[in-house]
Amino acid sequence: MGMGTSADAYWGFIKDPLYGYIRLTDVEKTIIDTPAVQRLRRIRQLAGAEYVYPAANHTRFEHVLGAMYLAGVVAENLPVTLTEEEKQKIRLAALLHDVGHAPFSHLFEPLLVKYLNRNHEDMSSWVIADSALADVICSLGFDAKELSELAIGRSSKIDKPFLNQIISSSFDVDKMDFVVRDSYHTGAAYGSVDVFRLIYTMDVLDGNLAVDITALPTLESLILARLESFRAIYFHRACRAVQMMLLKALDLAKHDLEILKVTKPDEYLEWDDYRVWSKLFANTRSREIMKDLTNRQLLKCAYERTFFAKDELVSSVFTKENVRHKLEEEIAAKAHVPITDVGIDVPSLASVPYHYAMEIGPIDIPIFSRNRSGHKIRQNISELSKVVDVLSVFMNIVRVYTKEQYREAVSDAAGQVLGESPLSNALSY
Amino acid sequence: MGMGTSADAYWGFIKDPLYGYIRLTDVEKTIIDTPAVQRLRRIRQLAGAEYVYPAANHTRFEHVLGAMYLAGVVAENLPVTLTEEEKQKIRLAALLHDVGHAPFSHLFEPLLVKYLNRNHEDMSSWVIADSALADVICSLGFDAKELSELAIGRSSKIDKPFLNQIISSSFDVDKMDFVVRDSYHTGAAYGSVDVFRLIYTMDVLDGNLAVDITALPTLESLILARLESFRAIYFHRACRAVQMMLLKALDLAKHDLEILKVTKPDEYLEWDDYRVWSKLFANTRSREIMKDLTNRQLLKCAYERTFFAKDELVSSVFTKENVRHKLEEEIAAKAHVPITDVGIDVPSLASVPYHYAMEIGPIDIPIFSRNRSGHKIRQNISELSKVVDVLSVFMNIVRVYTKEQYREAVSDAAGQVLGESPLSNALSY
Amino acid sequence: MGMGTSADAYWGFIKDPLYGYIRLTDVEKTIIDTPAVQRLRRIRQLAGAEYVYPAANHTRFEHVLGAMYLAGVVAENLPVTLTEEEKQKIRLAALLHDVGHAPFSHLFEPLLVKYLNRNHEDMSSWVIADSALADVICSLGFDAKELSELAIGRSSKIDKPFLNQIISSSFDVDKMDFVVRDSYHTGAAYGSVDVFRLIYTMDVLDGNLAVDITALPTLESLILARLESFRAIYFHRACRAVQMMLLKALDLAKHDLEILKVTKPDEYLEWDDYRVWSKLFANTRSREIMKDLTNRQLLKCAYERTFFAKDELVSSVFTKENVRHKLEEEIAAKAHVPITDVGIDVPSLASVPYHYAMEIGPIDIPIFSRNRSGHKIRQNISELSKVVDVLSVFMNIVRVYTKEQYREAVSDAAGQVLGESPLSNALSY
Amino acid sequence: MGMGTSADAYWGFIKDPLYGYIRLTDVEKTIIDTPAVQRLRRIRQLAGAEYVYPAANHTRFEHVLGAMYLAGVVAENLPVTLTEEEKQKIRLAALLHDVGHAPFSHLFEPLLVKYLNRNHEDMSSWVIADSALADVICSLGFDAKELSELAIGRSSKIDKPFLNQIISSSFDVDKMDFVVRDSYHTGAAYGSVDVFRLIYTMDVLDGNLAVDITALPTLESLILARLESFRAIYFHRACRAVQMMLLKALDLAKHDLEILKVTKPDEYLEWDDYRVWSKLFANTRSREIMKDLTNRQLLKCAYERTFFAKDELVSSVFTKENVRHKLEEEIAAKAHVPITDVGIDVPSLASVPYHYAMEIGPIDIPIFSRNRSGHKIRQNISELSKVVDVLSVFMNIVRVYTKEQYREAVSDAAGQVLGESPLSNALSY
Repeated sequence: MGMGTSADAYWGFIKDPLYGYIRLTDVEKTIIDTPAVQRLRRIRQLAGAEYVYPAANHTRFEHVLGAMYLAGVVAENLPVTLTEEEKQKIRLAALLHDVGHAPFSHLFEPLLVKYLNRNHEDMSSWVIADSALADVICSLGFDAKELSELAIGRSSKIDKPFLNQIISSSFDVDKMDFVVRDSYHTGAAYGSVDVFRLIYTMDVLDGNLAVDITALPTLESLILARLESFRAIYFHRACRAVQMMLLKALDLAKHDLEILKVTKPDEYLEWDDYRVWSKLFANTRSREIMKDLTNRQLLKCAYERTFFAKDELVSSVFTKENVRHKLEEEIAAKAHVPITDVGIDVPSLASVPYHYAMEIGPIDIPIFSRNRSGHKIRQNISELSKVVDVLSVFMNIVRVYTKEQYREAVSDAAGQVLGESPLSNALSY
Repeated sequence: MGMGTSADAYWGFIKDPLYGYIRLTDVEKTIIDTPAVQRLRRIRQLAGAEYVYPAANHTRFEHVLGAMYLAGVVAENLPVTLTEEEKQKIRLAALLHDVGHAPFSHLFEPLLVKYLNRNHEDMSSWVIADSALADVICSLGFDAKELSELAIGRSSKIDKPFLNQIISSSFDVDKMDFVVRDSYHTGAAYGSVDVFRLIYTMDVLDGNLAVDITALPTLESLILARLESFRAIYFHRACRAVQMMLLKALDLAKHDLEILKVTKPDEYLEWDDYRVWSKLFANTRSREIMKDLTNRQLLKCAYERTFFAKDELVSSVFTKENVRHKLEEEIAAKAHVPITDVGIDVPSLASVPYHYAMEIGPIDIPIFSRNRSGHKIRQNISELSKVVDVLSVFMNIVRVYTKEQYREAVSDAAGQVLGESPLSNALSY
Repeated sequence: MGMGTSADAYWGFIKDPLYGYIRLTDVEKTIIDTPAVQRLRRIRQLAGAEYVYPAANHTRFEHVLGAMYLAGVVAENLPVTLTEEEKQKIRLAALLHDVGHAPFSHLFEPLLVKYLNRNHEDMSSWVIADSALADVICSLGFDAKELSELAIGRSSKIDKPFLNQIISSSFDVDKMDFVVRDSYHTGAAYGSVDVFRLIYTMDVLDGNLAVDITALPTLESLILARLESFRAIYFHRACRAVQMMLLKALDLAKHDLEILKVTKPDEYLEWDDYRVWSKLFANTRSREIMKDLTNRQLLKCAYERTFFAKDELVSSVFTKENVRHKLEEEIAAKAHVPITDVGIDVPSLASVPYHYAMEIGPIDIPIFSRNRSGHKIRQNISELSKVVDVLSVFMNIVRVYTKEQYREAVSDAAGQVLGESPLSNALSY
Repeated sequence: MGMGTSADAYWGFIKDPLYGYIRLTDVEKTIIDTPAVQRLRRIRQLAGAEYVYPAANHTRFEHVLGAMYLAGVVAENLPVTLTEEEKQKIRLAALLHDVGHAPFSHLFEPLLVKYLNRNHEDMSSWVIADSALADVICSLGFDAKELSELAIGRSSKIDKPFLNQIISSSFDVDKMDFVVRDSYHTGAAYGSVDVFRLIYTMDVLDGNLAVDITALPTLESLILARLESFRAIYFHRACRAVQMMLLKALDLAKHDLEILKVTKPDEYLEWDDYRVWSKLFANTRSREIMKDLTNRQLLKCAYERTFFAKDELVSSVFTKENVRHKLEEEIAAKAHVPITDVGIDVPSLASVPYHYAMEIGPIDIPIFSRNRSGHKIRQNISELSKVVDVLSVFMNIVRVYTKEQYREAVSDAAGQVLGESPLSNALSY
């Protein structure tokens, strides 16, 4: 490895409010100081959530440092032999796993997909393999292509799938970090998951990352905390209203947003929350919405209904943009309000997507018990845990948003079109 | 109210690590300083748990102060009109709800029932109504009889059942405090329940304490945290082993324990953990077990099996002492070990009881939503919450304990007698 | 009070990670939702600190909510009679005390002073008295002029100076909140000051806010925590480097920054961190520095020296811009580096100022003890507390910053010009 | 090492509320499970403090686990080469450093000295070198004699004095743990010292444990937190009252306390808080005081005066038991109260001693800075830190306690005899 840096030379510590001191190698310090990683300082972790939780101003930068730290703890504690280089790679992969996030994180995702034909994970891979960052990675003696795969959990190292799973699986370092971190910064008291207990009981089973059955209660806590975080934060009515508005502003200004026309990762990396926000504010098409946002004149939820597992059919109906638009038109007509002031939101859909959403679906986490002689015996988690089983269904929320003055009319109209919902916000898991 | 004290004069603050400063009235200070309440300083909250969680040394005294504080917060925030005197009564009731606990708290319960024909709640009532404490209560201008009922949630004030429910229900101040407090002192990271969110959304529905449906996720958290606390602390194998041993020591020394022959509350109140522990240590019959305890030579779990909801029949079988004893004999015979070294433990049974156990059963918590005009509409919680629904079944764990040297033999024998348990500690909720 | 809102009607709660739930009145909710207050969401509390503490992304918005909460707790607990209206006013004053902050908070201060002839407190007053916010305040039935004075602790209500001191004094709600909050978000473990103990012992002495001598240790903790926070955060070398760079960028781009030419508060309020950052990045004069910032190519400290109390003379020398510039020239010449690459930083000076700085100076906090009959007797804090006494001197740090490649040369030159500093970062309080 | 255990084989984890999971080697697990260490479960860390801080029920057992953990972190992070065996020894030394503590910890110290001619450190050495524990230590392959010295910081390994200093010095693992732990369990908010920052900057300077000057603020925090903890907990009036009473009870019952006549460590180890408490309660001489304690009828402080640095002479006067007794007689006579109801307490004296007390005296902590070439240069802490300097004086508090009914009379008399103290509890540091 070049440049006088090395994976086993320690540069120093960074202070983290969750884990105390995070030790950095020289290699990590060098990569952290690249513009690609530094840019994450200006990408909010939870765009929109700050309107409900004033303290939720944390960024992707803080999160990737945390994920890197946890990846190191997993690598150190797994009872398999890993080389120092493998440990360094897995930490780097965690550090870089979100490097491709667009401004406002997940909020931007449908635009990425529509205009650049890539989701944020594709973007991470693209950035790692094909930007100035790639040069730094290579100069440090690492394979940028390999890291670009491992960083999204898709390295083709077939014999060690568990390395991918540390980065991307139902209990990866990404999820463990964000559940605890989002709880810390919002103040929402659901996230005191004992992630270290989970990590200390991890092992490799048939090549896959697996959890000892003794940590099953902790795993249940993690899964439930994630669900709670969805309900309390990501799917919160007012958070979604902010996101709907930002998304609409983006859509209105899309022709003036050069980010949607980038052809190289380094062009893409020039965009962050600050720049997009300022652009939207300066743009005559989106300015009105941005003014509403800065005045906290949020859209109001006029109708809400939650569908469970069996309703996947229903969900798939809403997924279709033209179907959704037809329903919006129908509601607007019945309510005698402008069509532009009726918006259907289905949080699990791509409209305002969360890549997590799909993962609330069926869970297949490798679990093992040990027999008397210490051998690991694979177990079936949904047989063992009723909590996991019941949480493994699909949750879809359908909401209709409108302006405050149209709330009552739209509420009535939506009830007629989409069916009476006996409770405004009743259904729970 | 006499003695220069009054319910609305503030004496000062006590520092609590969970809630910060707890403000005391003169009345409360006077009652706290009675021997009956001061005795709770020497009654552990979780006897046995300190063998697994070294920091779990908290006492009933600390817990009742916390329960009193929460009762006050509920009373202040309920959107119904309560007089200052009612608020003072409800705080006193919470303060006194555990005043009848025996040494080692719940551990002692079966002996209370067997020899004194009272459970710990009966003891609380007895102490409040009929000891020197009663005189203090009366001298302060309160009705000791009334408090003795309210303190266990059985005041006959029919028009205000919610007052009883603040003290005793599925989400009473007792449970809210112990879930959070046990988590704090054990370090087990499950208990960050947002109890204040729950409290701030409470209301009275048809006279009963009820929760706004918007706080349903928090309620689910509380219920799950309680379940986790059972699995992680109260039903922990080693904690139960300690309790089995203490219980056996108590049984062996029972003829020399005057506490089992008391006829007046004030005699009963002379007993605390310190005195019972010293007695057991000094008694030749129980000394051997106590020495094992102080040397941390704990009983070992040789067999474990968990039964769910439908198995209540099975559970009821184990409840019968003679049935259990027959099975112990059979296992001992097959294993060729002394009968005194085989013990069947069923945590939900009265053998080593937890008054909580019964409450993991079906849950019937009043829940309401508000319609557009603000009226409260009663809802059915098990329809709305799959989590509550799935957690409402009965969990029984059957374990067979023995000495370390007999572990393998007893394990085999128990498997033959009770059925093979495919996993040692596999089943989870 | 108009608009259907009132000071004693509660709108609801906001979740805060430090204080749990902050209860809002309708009046407060209405004022919080104005653009003037919402803008504080986009003003960082500690511009620059995030380069050292990645989690330090909190904003002025979160801080003013916290200050409002603490002001309410003080008002509720002071043993003097306040009307509900006075309590509402004091909470509003705390809510609005930072409404005039410029982008990047204190960093911008010298520009405010130089170009607009106002410091941030003057700006707060101006905004409250003379912007669209003023209209909202009036429509709610409050006197905007009066609030504009109280919000900076300069209300002329002579008979109740303690109301001003709740907002602005050595232990005001501003300081109590930021010490604890900055510690929470940075993770720097110095800030666990028991502010509630301090508040619960406050009283009014001769019209002034005073602290009971029993809380003297807590007061010492607060003062020491503030000092620690200065050293660990505000005066941290790298934080200051970031601030130096931002300040330089602002200076280079000043002719294109319309914020420096505003004539009305509402024009001023259109500026926030997002907009200024984007402007600086787009501006050809400041772009290079901004690129260095986004690449984390920070200025390096080549020389550091700390002066204590007696050196106020020295300090005053550095305060003069032309003196400082002369010294920079001299160092640059000796080091053979461009003058533009040598910068002297004196944190307590106006160059990169902190309004706190002056307050580390002599402290005159009213302290009282009670004699046997309960009368408050004024005491002299510096006689009673050696800690307060020793902390009451003035601390000046003189640093010379330059680019990494010139570090050694500038270090030597600065040593010759400013005197050898035996230790690089040695001196401590 | 015998018994199938080894210093580098990991047995498992113990959960600690402060540090998360503490990893144990087989060797440590074996030693922890000895009666000598298990006994620490029944020795309170802060006897008496629970009367002021209801949650302060933590024990020496929890503390020694924490100290062992911190010793391991220091050993792992010191930039010197230590063998695995040395690391294991230093952890064991920390684990055993308090094994000789008497019931009620420091409270018992003067009796130890008077009757057994040993302080608690001598007792620790004695127990480690000469009890059944010694046999276990030897059977594990360690030298009990060597450990008995290292455990109190007096190993004669001259070339590595820093090993002793990890266990016993101004910033040893004992102090670091108790400052943070006492704060956690009392809820007193002074103890959030960043001990890990201190540890990560430690180094060895001329064979001694030293701290990098960059961590000077953290060191100041630790020293101040210790001082705060003395004032808020150990020297708290009511805590001291409880200790005075317990001490008096011990004195009255001393002829019946076999612990004061033990001739072998194993006899001594049979005594714990439970047994002594029960003995004192059963003993007719001490029963009255014990009843007062259980009824919380505490002695009251009638007079208080604090002496600083220069008053060491004064302090030495009070140290003499006969001088103190003369003064008590004089006060009693003037106040016309029984001599047995007047007690002078000087917390820094041996009457109710704290082994910490002496260490608040002059501090001589090795501090170093690094010059440009990375060499460590020794610095003088009191020149660099005014805070350390001012905290390095001696603080003595003189108090006179009596029964509630004599409070006023004794207060007046003490004023005449000992000089008017203008403030009841005024003087602060």
